[in-house]
Amino acid sequence: MDAYRAIVTKRDTRKFSPEPIPEPVLTRILQAGRMAGSSKNTQPVRAILVTEPARKEEIASCGQFATHVPACAAAIAVVLTPGGGAFDAGRAAQNMMVAAWAEGVTSCPTSMHDAACANRVLGLPEGHSVAIVLAMGYPEAGTSVNLGRARIPLDDFVHSDHWRGEGAGG
Amino acid sequence: MDAYRAIVTKRDTRKFSPEPIPEPVLTRILQAGRMAGSSKNTQPVRAILVTEPARKEEIASCGQFATHVPACAAAIAVVLTPGGGAFDAGRAAQNMMVAAWAEGVTSCPTSMHDAACANRVLGLPEGHSVAIVLAMGYPEAGTSVNLGRARIPLDDFVHSDHWRGEGAGG
Repeated sequence: MDAYRAIVTKRDTRKFSPEPIPEPVLTRILQAGRMAGSSKNTQPVRAILVTEPARKEEIASCGQFATHVPACAAAIAVVLTPGGGAFDAGRAAQNMMVAAWAEGVTSCPTSMHDAACANRVLGLPEGHSVAIVLAMGYPEAGTSVNLGRARIPLDDFVHSDHWRGEGAGG
Repeated sequence: MDAYRAIVTKRDTRKFSPEPIPEPVLTRILQAGRMAGSSKNTQPVRAILVTEPARKEEIASCGQFATHVPACAAAIAVVLTPGGGAFDAGRAAQNMMVAAWAEGVTSCPTSMHDAACANRVLGLPEGHSVAIVLAMGYPEAGTSVNLGRARIPLDDFVHSDHWRGEGAGG
């Protein structure tokens, strides 16, 4: 799929078909995360690919809105090593989600509200943390993944040279 | 450009040609940022497109490693509105950088170490912040943008079902 099209049509969805994601597709998704740039190329991000049903269940128990995780084909935990920042995690996660979508795989970033739970389930060493879990899978038949949530108009998203509107500085 | 190719070949570079970025290309880059998903679709990210030479100079004065900003064709300040998180800024920034690269436009995420300076130069209202400035432009002639920095091997990036190695939990 064309890069621009993959980027602008990507929506976060959480209704998955039980179809597994083939190994080569998973590898491309993970490569996309690996190749993301990071602050000073410190590469603070790692990915834990979770496909074991029992562990997906355990992960679901660590988030407040994670009941879709057991039904996903693969959950990718985006892990930050010590000192890593959420901005770099966002870059790697977005690369993986767009690469997935370019292959027809939909995804839903899922927060682990109980961080200690996620660290325990995934066996993270001291100082590591889960930035997000990406639940991934092919969309459930009949799900319209293009009817995602609306976005603010482009004119509201973009400002030119300087913030405009209420509270703007001099 | 194919999505996967755009994602995995994207490198952060800071040597720009003086060629301006045509309006339709800039619009696609900004659309890519606008369409990025965000936590609960809160859409906390805004973009300030900076092309005025004087303001690019001022922005450069707010970062410790920002001397390349005045030479870029367009600087896009990725702004977080109150309550927004760096993870969502990373998602939007990566979308813009990959969409840019798919059009042959290279980019360099540039930190504003002096946050108060950046807020003042861009006129941000109270509670807003600059997550990053993306310096963008066509690559300088003769610059090999594919010789970017190395990445850790895929086997080190990916863990299966559970963290492996030193310090891993039970």
